[in-house]
Amino acid sequence: MRRILLALATVVGVVTALPAAAQFQKPEDAVKYRKGAFWVMGQHFGRIGAMVQGRVPFDGAVAAANAEIVADMSKLPFAGFVEGTAGTEKGTPKANVWTDKAKFDAGAKKMQEEAAKLATAAKANNLETLKTAFGSAAATCKACHDDYRN
Amino acid sequence: MRRILLALATVVGVVTALPAAAQFQKPEDAVKYRKGAFWVMGQHFGRIGAMVQGRVPFDGAVAAANAEIVADMSKLPFAGFVEGTAGTEKGTPKANVWTDKAKFDAGAKKMQEEAAKLATAAKANNLETLKTAFGSAAATCKACHDDYRN
Repeated sequence: MRRILLALATVVGVVTALPAAAQFQKPEDAVKYRKGAFWVMGQHFGRIGAMVQGRVPFDGAVAAANAEIVADMSKLPFAGFVEGTAGTEKGTPKANVWTDKAKFDAGAKKMQEEAAKLATAAKANNLETLKTAFGSAAATCKACHDDYRN
Repeated sequence: MRRILLALATVVGVVTALPAAAQFQKPEDAVKYRKGAFWVMGQHFGRIGAMVQGRVPFDGAVAAANAEIVADMSKLPFAGFVEGTAGTEKGTPKANVWTDKAKFDAGAKKMQEEAAKLATAAKANNLETLKTAFGSAAATCKACHDDYRN
């Protein structure tokens, strides 16, 4: 049985196989984790945004380095959405993160996919290609923020 | 000249070629960044620690997944140590981060090297190998915390 469970865990993804809460000692730790991961991701995403919006000169290598970090970071924050950590203050998650979980998870997956596409697009070293991919990725951020964030 | 500078930036590393502060809009953003990156890293490092210390059963695949994230995350927080963000409260960096910068940077590099070694060691799927690499990595965390953290 243990062997079957282990094999199953390997198939479905070892980390996500555990309930998210089991990975954190306290709910506050999970909140701090998701906020930290989103913040780090947002800083790197913002640096690409600054190029896309012409606030800083385009530099393909810098864009690619930042997009790589965005793609890596995009995998992390969702484990931090443990039950019982909804809020009402600005910036906190609404309860529908958990009551409408399948849709929330689909939105998270979409964002991760667009982040991966952004990392690939950024390697093209072309501002127009970067702009398109950045726009698609930014739309997935906004979609979830609109629906699930106070 | 611009071409030479660009070539140089590529050689020495595009992101670190810029002064760290130039990457953040406000010093508070940099502080939030380094704290977030360390917290995320610490959570994953702690999960390996729990196995090493026998608090949770050893699972090689989970250890390897966590070590991979630790190695990736180890590259990030140091950009957040921008000038003027020393503190006196518990957990804040002491001023010697900046006055003794070469030594601090060497400590950071050592930690990153040990995190990379941990990621390699974790793939061996052997608890004793993991323990050794975890101990070496943990020692690099402690060394800097002892010297540079209030």
